[in-house]
Amino acid sequence: MPTDTAAELLALFAAAGDSWVSGEAISRRIGVSRTAVWKHVEALRALGYQVEAAPRKGYRLIARPDLLTPEEVSAGLTTRRLGRVIEYRETVGSTNDLAKDLARKGVPEGLLVLADQQTAGKGRLGRSWLTPPGAAIAMSLVLRPALPPHEAPRITLAAAVAVTEAVRDMTGLPAGIKWPNDVQLEGRKLCGILTEMEAELDRVAFVVLGIGVNVGLRREQMSPALRETATSLALEGAIGVRRAVLVQAILSRFEQAYDDLLAGRFPQVLSRWRSLSVTLGRPVRVHGLGGQVTLEGVAQDVDDDGALLVRDADGCLHRVLSGEVSLRPA
Amino acid sequence: MPTDTAAELLALFAAAGDSWVSGEAISRRIGVSRTAVWKHVEALRALGYQVEAAPRKGYRLIARPDLLTPEEVSAGLTTRRLGRVIEYRETVGSTNDLAKDLARKGVPEGLLVLADQQTAGKGRLGRSWLTPPGAAIAMSLVLRPALPPHEAPRITLAAAVAVTEAVRDMTGLPAGIKWPNDVQLEGRKLCGILTEMEAELDRVAFVVLGIGVNVGLRREQMSPALRETATSLALEGAIGVRRAVLVQAILSRFEQAYDDLLAGRFPQVLSRWRSLSVTLGRPVRVHGLGGQVTLEGVAQDVDDDGALLVRDADGCLHRVLSGEVSLRPA
Repeated sequence: MPTDTAAELLALFAAAGDSWVSGEAISRRIGVSRTAVWKHVEALRALGYQVEAAPRKGYRLIARPDLLTPEEVSAGLTTRRLGRVIEYRETVGSTNDLAKDLARKGVPEGLLVLADQQTAGKGRLGRSWLTPPGAAIAMSLVLRPALPPHEAPRITLAAAVAVTEAVRDMTGLPAGIKWPNDVQLEGRKLCGILTEMEAELDRVAFVVLGIGVNVGLRREQMSPALRETATSLALEGAIGVRRAVLVQAILSRFEQAYDDLLAGRFPQVLSRWRSLSVTLGRPVRVHGLGGQVTLEGVAQDVDDDGALLVRDADGCLHRVLSGEVSLRPA
Repeated sequence: MPTDTAAELLALFAAAGDSWVSGEAISRRIGVSRTAVWKHVEALRALGYQVEAAPRKGYRLIARPDLLTPEEVSAGLTTRRLGRVIEYRETVGSTNDLAKDLARKGVPEGLLVLADQQTAGKGRLGRSWLTPPGAAIAMSLVLRPALPPHEAPRITLAAAVAVTEAVRDMTGLPAGIKWPNDVQLEGRKLCGILTEMEAELDRVAFVVLGIGVNVGLRREQMSPALRETATSLALEGAIGVRRAVLVQAILSRFEQAYDDLLAGRFPQVLSRWRSLSVTLGRPVRVHGLGGQVTLEGVAQDVDDDGALLVRDADGCLHRVLSGEVSLRPA
């Protein structure tokens, strides 16, 4: 079944809610004969949708699987330019790597790569990122901002704001941002953001914004080490969050924040970041790219480049542009 | 003829200077029969080398073409790790694009791409760059520095220093650096540097450093517009500069400066940059990425990130990280 037909059929069912949709209405809407309608319904069922059929009543959708497919994400998406074109893979090595390949081939801004499973998911600083099938969101956006590279970290901050607000709105869980770009719940990592770019030294060619969210991930799917540091929406009590709906919420909030930063309204994004931060005001330890502790102090603020401003015991203010920060008890 | 055999044969001739080398000595050195020596000499001649042959004396090299081949560049190269592996193309779209492809495939730091001609040479900010056959150097180095992206501009400054010093040493011409990375002679551009990178936001994956030098370029090879703004070593009176030797000189100076900056001695590089600069102390006009004038003032200094510090008429100091600068009469 073509994607468009499936999307139209799903939209029809969504509009009908609990009501029945007649075979005739379906045949008019998707432009096939009434006898062919049955075949399209069967195709939906094969994808995991539960469709009830009854003589003289027609069809109604009684359960939909939690899929990240283009049909699911496109139906109800409110963005103007981000995620309007979706490249979906059931399994992929890394959505960021696929998005970078596509970006190099010239795909326009806004293309979204989605995968149900990553076999070689990537985290920051060369780390791996776990994405077992059905349990997480793995999404990567191709962006082509007219920014110099040193302003690109603003995109990561905007993305962290978008994810945190989307999670709070959908689940009520008190998600917060750990500098620069982890979204946490009770000190455990819920979402990682990996931003990669290709650039001349004073001009970004493209940015790939990768977002991984642990949605239904169970404890036994994590390594013992990960159980200490990571969590998922389900583990924190938000059961049954539909991944496609969360993707829509993230995309729509991110598009707003991204438009703000491109239009010179980055201070607004930054002020939302500050209010969601769990880092500011806390004693922190800064680790360099090699893991060594390079600075201890109190996190004071972030600046326009996304740098963390840390005041050390001597009262000196340091600008931290890279590396890792661990939070210490206040 | 394999590259290694040609390189050995050329090294043998180079060591002999004006003297003859016997066929027997050649056969011993390159491990072929004396009758096969003649075939190897013929292969060299086919590349443009003039080799004299005389019975009972042997062979001697009386003229060598100005080639950018691996044999020419490798013979006499003094670097430890940059340019030890060379990927040569007689014609290529862009040496930077080829180097980026190779870098993505994982080639190690130091790989050098060389081409005699570029058909789609690239300059900064999406401009094109002219590289007709035989008249210029087109070289791109793959680098893998352990630097955050905001320090990558230091590599460009180091490269500008290396090219400028190499040109001064080899030709005596008073080359100077216009911020950030043009090497000029009498206000006309002699060399352009295009640095591209792939990075996470806080870690460089690789940098491709592209250097184009106009060596023998003639006025009639330039467009009318280019004649106003560009020049070549030959046009400035330095005739017969061998491109391979200039590449060696650039590589060896750049390796030193690159090692300095990786080892925390960037201030030394910067102080050489300052002394070669034609921008500092001059009234300048700064143009944004869109071409608009964003600032006028006097160029005071560069800082550790390679930013140009410009003082405006009100005495305020501005940090210019991207864009273009035009020099104005003092």
